[in-house]
Amino acid sequence: MNRQWLYAQQPQGKIGTDTFEWAESEIPVPDAGEVLVRTRMLSLDPANRAWMMGKTYREALEPGQVMSGFAVGEVVESNAAGFERGDIVEGDWGWQDYAVLSPDRLTKRTGDVSLELLVGPLSVTGLTAYFGLLEVGRPKPGDTVLVSAAAGAVGTMVGQIAKLMGCRVVGTAGGQEKCDWLVSDLGFDAAVDYKASGVRRAIAAACPDGIDIYFDNTGGPVLDAALSLMNLRGRIVCCGNVSQYDVEKPAPGPMAVPGLIVVKRLRMEGFIVMDFYDQRAEAETRLSGWVTDGRIKAVVDVIDGLENAPEALIGLFEGTNWGKRAVRVS
Amino acid sequence: MNRQWLYAQQPQGKIGTDTFEWAESEIPVPDAGEVLVRTRMLSLDPANRAWMMGKTYREALEPGQVMSGFAVGEVVESNAAGFERGDIVEGDWGWQDYAVLSPDRLTKRTGDVSLELLVGPLSVTGLTAYFGLLEVGRPKPGDTVLVSAAAGAVGTMVGQIAKLMGCRVVGTAGGQEKCDWLVSDLGFDAAVDYKASGVRRAIAAACPDGIDIYFDNTGGPVLDAALSLMNLRGRIVCCGNVSQYDVEKPAPGPMAVPGLIVVKRLRMEGFIVMDFYDQRAEAETRLSGWVTDGRIKAVVDVIDGLENAPEALIGLFEGTNWGKRAVRVS
Repeated sequence: MNRQWLYAQQPQGKIGTDTFEWAESEIPVPDAGEVLVRTRMLSLDPANRAWMMGKTYREALEPGQVMSGFAVGEVVESNAAGFERGDIVEGDWGWQDYAVLSPDRLTKRTGDVSLELLVGPLSVTGLTAYFGLLEVGRPKPGDTVLVSAAAGAVGTMVGQIAKLMGCRVVGTAGGQEKCDWLVSDLGFDAAVDYKASGVRRAIAAACPDGIDIYFDNTGGPVLDAALSLMNLRGRIVCCGNVSQYDVEKPAPGPMAVPGLIVVKRLRMEGFIVMDFYDQRAEAETRLSGWVTDGRIKAVVDVIDGLENAPEALIGLFEGTNWGKRAVRVS
Repeated sequence: MNRQWLYAQQPQGKIGTDTFEWAESEIPVPDAGEVLVRTRMLSLDPANRAWMMGKTYREALEPGQVMSGFAVGEVVESNAAGFERGDIVEGDWGWQDYAVLSPDRLTKRTGDVSLELLVGPLSVTGLTAYFGLLEVGRPKPGDTVLVSAAAGAVGTMVGQIAKLMGCRVVGTAGGQEKCDWLVSDLGFDAAVDYKASGVRRAIAAACPDGIDIYFDNTGGPVLDAALSLMNLRGRIVCCGNVSQYDVEKPAPGPMAVPGLIVVKRLRMEGFIVMDFYDQRAEAETRLSGWVTDGRIKAVVDVIDGLENAPEALIGLFEGTNWGKRAVRVS
């Protein structure tokens, strides 16, 4: 059987278990030129939620289709040149045990890399942090880098890469426990609990020389605070807006835009990881080296069982994850 | 006598004549190393209003001081090397007939250029348009460029430079008369009256291929509309926020920030003209050539008499100016 989670209906406000519907079907059979893949790990990403609300950098999800998501899997049967049974592949085939795919929708991964690393830190998540920080933010040694959702998949990587670049690194995260962990385990210089009161004041205290780069995963109040604390010619790397994905009514836009952008000559720039895939091989080599050396800790928060995927995604918006959240399917 | 306008008090809401106070004093005498300058033309700029509300890229205005502003003048007496009686100079010495200045606060202008051109199109205003469009916006032939406050000092120049770069150019301005003038006299491809209803729809119709560069002089509703119509990897040049300078209560920030910045991978970047002064000589040569050739029309809206400076500035926020507004002092 092919177990699947379908996207059942557009959520009003927060996603819930009724956003998804369980289904079982026959294992599909690959035609000539196609590959049958068995899912090993699913990547859970805040963007999964954004896809429900409309067209983004991809088409909106349509109720009734298999829930989309980036995955790592193993080739079970191949009728396509270049793929063999046992190959480890990645792609976006969604929340199901098996999928039949054409080769252009698959990327083959080689080398002795664990599935936990392939599902995020050495793939989409790590590359997002790497390109966003280095290519969009362009850090210089001594810069102060603030990153929001710092205990999340991208944030943990951004902070550690920024430290390697010689920056002072401050993160925001939900709760004192995560904040302490960022400093003690991941080497952040300081961390601020965005759920506590006085967030702007706390960020200001943690960034006594102002902020040169704000890596924005959240939008919302942390973006407002960051804008007011940016240094001249500071850069805001717009990676995500997770504070606004799982809400019924979005918050107002930042009052400091465009006023402070002019006055401080800020650059606020969006990107998605695919924009930089021409540099992917080099980036993976560097990231992989840093993880192997132990200079970067890859933090993956694995939940077992496809049946638990909805709860795992819901938890992402409640901040129950530490680092990259993934679901082990097989 | 040295006639002066003092900055009297911070306006609550719109500026009025009570924002300023007339004063008369002795003509100052230059010490060794100083220059006495007589004002010929005053430049009136939306930024003058922003300076009243707090620190920007310069200190806030303090009640009691001579009202600040960029000016063009003539050296009357010089005790400084490099300056002679009769030299034409520019600098920020504010709303008065005479000022004593040290040479580092003066830029000498040479060449046979009229005061009307020196007060804007071939100086701060023209350079703002030039550097903002070319260095921040980076236009390519065929790009669609939208510019707000298009009938103003910077907007008229941005639109015409963009046409020279092979772009499709659309402007927003207040009233149908100005819109018609942008198209018939300045060569814009289309213009939209921002005071009419259905502004977003009108901009969309005027930009059938979307917007590649939005040169933002205004913030406010035109920025909101532009954000929603930007093409992938579009650039928003943040030059000013004039819709919010002369109001009691600023409008909310743009809802599309940071969401659409991520999704469309936009770059939103602020600048001020001084950031590019290392390239000033080349820029002035090019601008001057375009104006001399008649490829760019320099539009200067001159009001006679220092006594009329407050009304001239108030009018700027009512949109009574066509092109660059200046006051002829002597």
